[in-house]
Amino acid sequence: MTREEKFMMEAIRCSSNGMQNNEGGPFGCIVVRGEEIVGRGNNKVTSSNDPTAHAEITAIRDACKNLNTFQLTDCEIYTSCEPCPMCLGAIYWARPKAVYYANTRMDAAVIGFDDSMIYDEMSAPLEKRKIPIIQLGREEAYKVFKAWQDKADKKPY
Amino acid sequence: MTREEKFMMEAIRCSSNGMQNNEGGPFGCIVVRGEEIVGRGNNKVTSSNDPTAHAEITAIRDACKNLNTFQLTDCEIYTSCEPCPMCLGAIYWARPKAVYYANTRMDAAVIGFDDSMIYDEMSAPLEKRKIPIIQLGREEAYKVFKAWQDKADKKPY
Repeated sequence: MTREEKFMMEAIRCSSNGMQNNEGGPFGCIVVRGEEIVGRGNNKVTSSNDPTAHAEITAIRDACKNLNTFQLTDCEIYTSCEPCPMCLGAIYWARPKAVYYANTRMDAAVIGFDDSMIYDEMSAPLEKRKIPIIQLGREEAYKVFKAWQDKADKKPY
Repeated sequence: MTREEKFMMEAIRCSSNGMQNNEGGPFGCIVVRGEEIVGRGNNKVTSSNDPTAHAEITAIRDACKNLNTFQLTDCEIYTSCEPCPMCLGAIYWARPKAVYYANTRMDAAVIGFDDSMIYDEMSAPLEKRKIPIIQLGREEAYKVFKAWQDKADKKPY
């Protein structure tokens, strides 16, 4: 078994344990730095009343807490299923060096998790979205953006 | 001022306060049900070492906690900037009835937050992604998906 296969088995174990404990759907994820597991997560949507508590999000949050950072540069992410758009977005913000996944988004659709609708919505024009998305108040909001630009002590990311 | 403009002003206030308190970038969000604000959030990425702590994610988590649910049906989301792909994904999972935003993703790019790269990555084929994404271990992971299908006491979402 390669090191990558070994780490993936651990992500799969997280998916199985979380499901068996009725924490949420059958999804698990770990974050690895070098040869060390620095974060773990599994889906906890239903048990924690948090629609953002997917396996990848919980694992990224756990790893960042453990490493005291908001960037996972030099880390690898192992997830038992191809990330949904929310989790893929979170992965890009965390900036790991590689992502390994096992089940595909089609596999997820077969068992009732249809991420493909959300993937389609990402690239749909705003006026064609299933959830109406409406612009208002830009003039006032833009003043805060200007204030950020002018802020001397800001911490960029 | 319409009710929508009034609520947007509150989201903008969240964006300004969070920035002034050095909690993170200049982004704020509220969740509204009927005429009541049921959740609030602002960007806390740098102060909480959490790359997922965008305004929309923190507001959704706050609202779900307050309402004791993982679905924001019948709610509206007011965000001071067009959601990034991670937050848009979270919004689809939370399923509110409408989203209002003020600044655009182009406005965000001008002040250094380039969400458009992540939008492009969403629709890029896996083999062309900036972060390598590699499949392995599907056979083992799929067993857990099968177990979910067969699970008698599961809570679907």
